[in-house]
Amino acid sequence: MTVAPEDRAALLVEALPYIRQFQDAVVIVKYGGNALAGTGVSGAEGVGGAGEPAAAGGMDGPGAERAALASFAQDVVLLGSVGLRPVVVHGGGPQIGDLLGRLGMETEFRNGQRVTDAATLDVVRMVLVGKVNRDIVSAVNVHGPLAVGLSGEDANLITATAHTADLGYVGTVAHVDATIVERLLSERLIPVLATIGADAAGQAYNINADTVAGAVAEALGAEKLIFLTDVQGLRADPADETSLMHRVSAVELEGMVASGAAAGGMVPKAEACIRAVRNGVHRAHILDGRVPHALLLELFTDAGVGTMVLP
Amino acid sequence: MTVAPEDRAALLVEALPYIRQFQDAVVIVKYGGNALAGTGVSGAEGVGGAGEPAAAGGMDGPGAERAALASFAQDVVLLGSVGLRPVVVHGGGPQIGDLLGRLGMETEFRNGQRVTDAATLDVVRMVLVGKVNRDIVSAVNVHGPLAVGLSGEDANLITATAHTADLGYVGTVAHVDATIVERLLSERLIPVLATIGADAAGQAYNINADTVAGAVAEALGAEKLIFLTDVQGLRADPADETSLMHRVSAVELEGMVASGAAAGGMVPKAEACIRAVRNGVHRAHILDGRVPHALLLELFTDAGVGTMVLP
Amino acid sequence: MTVAPEDRAALLVEALPYIRQFQDAVVIVKYGGNALAGTGVSGAEGVGGAGEPAAAGGMDGPGAERAALASFAQDVVLLGSVGLRPVVVHGGGPQIGDLLGRLGMETEFRNGQRVTDAATLDVVRMVLVGKVNRDIVSAVNVHGPLAVGLSGEDANLITATAHTADLGYVGTVAHVDATIVERLLSERLIPVLATIGADAAGQAYNINADTVAGAVAEALGAEKLIFLTDVQGLRADPADETSLMHRVSAVELEGMVASGAAAGGMVPKAEACIRAVRNGVHRAHILDGRVPHALLLELFTDAGVGTMVLP
Amino acid sequence: MTVAPEDRAALLVEALPYIRQFQDAVVIVKYGGNALAGTGVSGAEGVGGAGEPAAAGGMDGPGAERAALASFAQDVVLLGSVGLRPVVVHGGGPQIGDLLGRLGMETEFRNGQRVTDAATLDVVRMVLVGKVNRDIVSAVNVHGPLAVGLSGEDANLITATAHTADLGYVGTVAHVDATIVERLLSERLIPVLATIGADAAGQAYNINADTVAGAVAEALGAEKLIFLTDVQGLRADPADETSLMHRVSAVELEGMVASGAAAGGMVPKAEACIRAVRNGVHRAHILDGRVPHALLLELFTDAGVGTMVLP
Amino acid sequence: MTVAPEDRAALLVEALPYIRQFQDAVVIVKYGGNALAGTGVSGAEGVGGAGEPAAAGGMDGPGAERAALASFAQDVVLLGSVGLRPVVVHGGGPQIGDLLGRLGMETEFRNGQRVTDAATLDVVRMVLVGKVNRDIVSAVNVHGPLAVGLSGEDANLITATAHTADLGYVGTVAHVDATIVERLLSERLIPVLATIGADAAGQAYNINADTVAGAVAEALGAEKLIFLTDVQGLRADPADETSLMHRVSAVELEGMVASGAAAGGMVPKAEACIRAVRNGVHRAHILDGRVPHALLLELFTDAGVGTMVLP
Amino acid sequence: MTVAPEDRAALLVEALPYIRQFQDAVVIVKYGGNALAGTGVSGAEGVGGAGEPAAAGGMDGPGAERAALASFAQDVVLLGSVGLRPVVVHGGGPQIGDLLGRLGMETEFRNGQRVTDAATLDVVRMVLVGKVNRDIVSAVNVHGPLAVGLSGEDANLITATAHTADLGYVGTVAHVDATIVERLLSERLIPVLATIGADAAGQAYNINADTVAGAVAEALGAEKLIFLTDVQGLRADPADETSLMHRVSAVELEGMVASGAAAGGMVPKAEACIRAVRNGVHRAHILDGRVPHALLLELFTDAGVGTMVLP
Repeated sequence: MTVAPEDRAALLVEALPYIRQFQDAVVIVKYGGNALAGTGVSGAEGVGGAGEPAAAGGMDGPGAERAALASFAQDVVLLGSVGLRPVVVHGGGPQIGDLLGRLGMETEFRNGQRVTDAATLDVVRMVLVGKVNRDIVSAVNVHGPLAVGLSGEDANLITATAHTADLGYVGTVAHVDATIVERLLSERLIPVLATIGADAAGQAYNINADTVAGAVAEALGAEKLIFLTDVQGLRADPADETSLMHRVSAVELEGMVASGAAAGGMVPKAEACIRAVRNGVHRAHILDGRVPHALLLELFTDAGVGTMVLP
Repeated sequence: MTVAPEDRAALLVEALPYIRQFQDAVVIVKYGGNALAGTGVSGAEGVGGAGEPAAAGGMDGPGAERAALASFAQDVVLLGSVGLRPVVVHGGGPQIGDLLGRLGMETEFRNGQRVTDAATLDVVRMVLVGKVNRDIVSAVNVHGPLAVGLSGEDANLITATAHTADLGYVGTVAHVDATIVERLLSERLIPVLATIGADAAGQAYNINADTVAGAVAEALGAEKLIFLTDVQGLRADPADETSLMHRVSAVELEGMVASGAAAGGMVPKAEACIRAVRNGVHRAHILDGRVPHALLLELFTDAGVGTMVLP
Repeated sequence: MTVAPEDRAALLVEALPYIRQFQDAVVIVKYGGNALAGTGVSGAEGVGGAGEPAAAGGMDGPGAERAALASFAQDVVLLGSVGLRPVVVHGGGPQIGDLLGRLGMETEFRNGQRVTDAATLDVVRMVLVGKVNRDIVSAVNVHGPLAVGLSGEDANLITATAHTADLGYVGTVAHVDATIVERLLSERLIPVLATIGADAAGQAYNINADTVAGAVAEALGAEKLIFLTDVQGLRADPADETSLMHRVSAVELEGMVASGAAAGGMVPKAEACIRAVRNGVHRAHILDGRVPHALLLELFTDAGVGTMVLP
Repeated sequence: MTVAPEDRAALLVEALPYIRQFQDAVVIVKYGGNALAGTGVSGAEGVGGAGEPAAAGGMDGPGAERAALASFAQDVVLLGSVGLRPVVVHGGGPQIGDLLGRLGMETEFRNGQRVTDAATLDVVRMVLVGKVNRDIVSAVNVHGPLAVGLSGEDANLITATAHTADLGYVGTVAHVDATIVERLLSERLIPVLATIGADAAGQAYNINADTVAGAVAEALGAEKLIFLTDVQGLRADPADETSLMHRVSAVELEGMVASGAAAGGMVPKAEACIRAVRNGVHRAHILDGRVPHALLLELFTDAGVGTMVLP
Repeated sequence: MTVAPEDRAALLVEALPYIRQFQDAVVIVKYGGNALAGTGVSGAEGVGGAGEPAAAGGMDGPGAERAALASFAQDVVLLGSVGLRPVVVHGGGPQIGDLLGRLGMETEFRNGQRVTDAATLDVVRMVLVGKVNRDIVSAVNVHGPLAVGLSGEDANLITATAHTADLGYVGTVAHVDATIVERLLSERLIPVLATIGADAAGQAYNINADTVAGAVAEALGAEKLIFLTDVQGLRADPADETSLMHRVSAVELEGMVASGAAAGGMVPKAEACIRAVRNGVHRAHILDGRVPHALLLELFTDAGVGTMVLP
Repeated sequence: MTVAPEDRAALLVEALPYIRQFQDAVVIVKYGGNALAGTGVSGAEGVGGAGEPAAAGGMDGPGAERAALASFAQDVVLLGSVGLRPVVVHGGGPQIGDLLGRLGMETEFRNGQRVTDAATLDVVRMVLVGKVNRDIVSAVNVHGPLAVGLSGEDANLITATAHTADLGYVGTVAHVDATIVERLLSERLIPVLATIGADAAGQAYNINADTVAGAVAEALGAEKLIFLTDVQGLRADPADETSLMHRVSAVELEGMVASGAAAGGMVPKAEACIRAVRNGVHRAHILDGRVPHALLLELFTDAGVGTMVLP
């Protein structure tokens, strides 16, 4: 890197006010199972175990995966170290599909949702809480005693109800009690949240991670809700690489969902963004998680990467 | 129940001073995987996934299992509600063996420890953190937003090192940083701890749950370390039901381990008790978890159930 | 006592939730001069020095008296030790009559109230503050540095006005400033209150202890107002031992006072109960103080002793 | 009063630095039973009920008594209002003798101490706690909700033991736990202390008020210990009015007690002064309580009234 | 001084309640440049550098000046030491005129205001902040580390705007943010304020010190606003020494300004008093600063010195 | 600026850990009078009014001066906004010389120190406190209510003694009481300190600003002491531009002063650096204040600008 001193100075003068502006700001970062896998079919990861079948091919192998996770963890730690309050929410669709496959358990999909019986739920929960969550916590904690893994069941963080009767233990968010998250944030710890919820009787449910990220952002009155995806962002024309939209209003985005311009795995993200910015979250972002340090560039430079959603 | 008013009054007069005495006292309760299963071979559960093969038979079935867990959860909640600070530490040997079996993964045992490669560790972690831990958290949270599941990886709670080179990712406790536990306790939450640790590089290890319970008790300066087992307690003669020892000193217990009077799964419990009472824990107890409400009877009545270990 | 372990466990499971429920709850206990004396004419003690002539006979002697006081003191200390906040309010009719007699001072009664001139008031105050109050404080403090004696004159706790012009220094409660009581409670001390009040000019008055207990309960927003009497409780038919009413509403109790079903010394208690439950006190109780540990049994078991008054 | 503005200004410039200097200073004021009576035999009042017989004659009548008490109360309130922390300790010898006389109870004196059986103690306690203490509290509280009456039995403030076997319930100070006094002071309340103590079994004792004042001053690390007497102060020659000593060291005072120059009721005062200034109390004072506002003049002007004792 | 003890006592009894009453009270004291100089033309000093030409003659010389300042500083320190919270606001007209003269800078006056260009402002600011303010701070700090000099530019304390276009950098108060003053007061420090303000662009302005004193008093919700002048107070007839008005209402004072009975330098003082007492300041005072310890006499004795303005 | 995203990301990854590392770090920045003037003779500015005559020529004019000050103020504000705690210490040699000249006051120099009589001191103080300090405060406060001007006289911050008898009111630092600075820092305010001190009698002294900066850094236990100069830094060979030393130890620097390699105005800076790093200040820096944003580049990038002094 051969950046001239005056350019370095200019970049610092550009970045420092953002650091000041976002001091103590809560930032919810949705990190998808596909992002964890380093790749995947566009928009597919958000629906997690409760959504579409996991993409089978195109893995870059465990090395690339680990490097991407390490880079993401470094960004999250850096955000925390300069005074922001990041919260990581994650899914784990591909990993769930993988273990179900190894156990020879077949599952049915209805409307893109995996029908989840008790045995399937056990597998989902083991993967999300016992595997994916742990991998993220470990990657963060290489930098210090910072991350604490949570499930929505902890301290009744996420109260769930059944999504529809025929999908079994696929749930929706009925209530978020973010007290435990706030306590951890006030201790400058980094909560990492697996998107399992429970009802009053203690029955667990699997919930779409994009939806949970939005609900938690609302409950915390977050400054930002950020989706790290494996696509470029939102395109005016999904097929046209040059049509990336840098800013979009909630109303426009609503139109794109209605018209089908935003489709597939982008729908729950879009809906979470719309709802969040209408309920007190300042800005929502759909970023290209494949760009190294996308979080830093979006937060601390004038030019962002991806699409920003405004109220 | 037809207890006369004067007996009721006498019992209250007996119990209330204990409640006063144990106000704010930290009590570590080791709850074994076999206790969860409602049965099991004597002393086998403590070694968890890192120890002996799980007992195959003698299950009372999922209904009895669930009732036992619910009763245990009620006791823990009651302890917390009257001012004590319980911490639950658990293993999960039978459940680990079960999933390994379903996945067709064979594991080798050396000196009673399961050789644990990366794939096995993934399974161990998924079961402990994603299954057993979750089941306990859910059972407690039926009573209120109280339990928070933890793994030793969270906020670097348990730093681990490899036990011996040939056992793979079987670890020992190198350091306990109980800060996160203390924070949760100060919020009157109930930590439920899965006994996975991590080294500085983020590599996870499976650790014997009895050892972890003792190390956490020490780190917290706990009032009590309680092992809920599926045996009667410590017997002078293991084969003689009438030889239950109500009190034993650390020195005597050391002798029993040396002489083989305490053997099998009782050894790590005995060693954890000895070390704990010599490092600031006031009393250690080995209780019969099959007695309903054993925790309440031990803590709040003059007559205990099981064996108390003194410095 | 030979209570089976399962019955002991059941009693603990019954009692602990009450302890949790009443955590930090303020409980006003009116302890009458007759209760101190271990016996007396039904309902007579509550009116204290300002009320009916003291009962002359039926004493069990100083030994029984002392034992009853010690048992009462133990209960109050136990309540405090498990997190409740007891406040003791007491009268002292028999003891006042006794000293007046020894001093050869004759007093007149009008409508059941003792006409109180300055000399009489001096005697009343010496007995209540310097004798009865001290005896209760001493009995409590055998268990630790807990009780602090108060008179309504301290820190202007009770502002009084003359009851009626012809009764002299018999007063009624004009205002309660419970600040000093709250401060002592916040230090986990046990206030013991003699029912003398003072007006703005510093003139002392003797006030009915039942009325003071109710007024203090209101001012503190107490959870419970408990009258420890030497009768069984409230009876539907005063002459019928089997007609004890376990629960009664404020409206019903009002009717009983109007109809004369509640009479004599029961009237100020009934009126204090009615007013208290209508002004924020959760429950009022009229208990049989002769039952050992009546307080514990009423507060911590499902079956109470005596009559509970509801709003 | 026709004081010139420049003299007024000079007096303020003189007084204000004392107010600053004594900010938050704890000042123990011993107020004797004779002072309450407005007169009395020199030095006799300090020994209280445990000492010499009460002076019979020379009363100025209740009006003068009340005025003197009101003036004293005003001074104490003024001290508190400008930031000092006064504590009043009082005896009550004349008043005790009076009630014993009215009750026809004869008591014997040995070495100037009243032999105190249980019945006598009851009278002593009633007078000190129920009469004298109350009168002082009332007089102070005319100015606001400030005074709180205490007995040494409250919150185990004064632990007593028997003085000598043959004096009955005449006690000496075994231990002072001034916590309750400190709590009241920290709330800017004015503790008024009757000098009854209790042993561990709850048995009450009557203790010399001068001794208690000294012990409390020590326990609180008081700035000043002040005896308000009905004499001019300490005289080099007791018979010579012009021999008032303005300052005396502990060593000199010790010599005066040994030589008999300080005698009678002055002895316990002198001993309390000596002990106090040797145990951390900064200054002790023996003042002429008959001078109006003696407390203010001693504390806030360069010229004092009476004798100051230095270490 | 030969004041009798009873007069001393009476004075203390008179003064102490004022000390209590003014505990923690914020008192703004305007100290004029002429007061600093020990003399000057009546009412001329208040308009500071922004007002009339400085009086040239009549100085008593530096010795008298220094003594007057030392006496004033002592009073301010004494106020602070007994619990009040004094804030000193000062002008510096004579001193500004002096330096301008030495630098040979001529300035024009319009309507009694000095036309202030950038060079003049530099001189004004140097004198007020670097000379007069420093002299007062030094005089106070002889008594301890108490005074902290402030300019209205510090922490945006005083936001100013131009008074009128033709006067240059003569400003008026647009906004007072008294946070920094409150912080210093809460640390028991004594703020000494030079009356320079700044606009949002950092441009400094010179502001009339009387006006600033009033605005700061309002912003702090001060108990008192006191002008120390070199006149006797407000006279009904300016020419008649015996016509001093001890009390005047805001309405009456308004009438006097309108009628010209209050004129010259008295006008901004009168207007500041009127506005202050109508905006929450309890009392405003115009005192004769030439009377030694005028502040103490006004605040702590029944008879004041000068004129008190009531709402 | 056309810096590639990956370079921007790399710069952020480089800068953020420094921001974390310096969180809450106290940084003393010495800003010289010459730096204010935008230029000047090498090393001359540090000696301030107490040192060498001011450089007369080479000014870039007021526009450049103002821009340099604005850029410096922006840097200081940015440091504060991302969590550091900057303290500005300044001299004012050229400005003092200027005003002395305008007033026609001639001053003598002995050993490079200006002989300072009372009249000269008044001018020095007016310039430092009333002019230079104000200019810096104003420049900072354009960004928000942040800066508070201080003189060493405020709250007895700097106690001074005469340097040598023949230099008049040229002082040295006898004691630093940094309490007021710590209070302002804890409120996230930016103290700007003029280097006037005072002795116990309130007499002011002018002190070399480099020395004051070092003494304040020590007293605060600062992380860094930074001299912003108008030279490149410390050169091994003062005449060789390419001989800039990036790091130097205290011992080496001591040698350079002894050998004359560091001379002139560099000497007090070097001595302040040496003493500071030996008394708890972590690092001292001599930077080229002419490089725009030198503070940011030194603190937040791997490559610094100027010379770092290590213990």
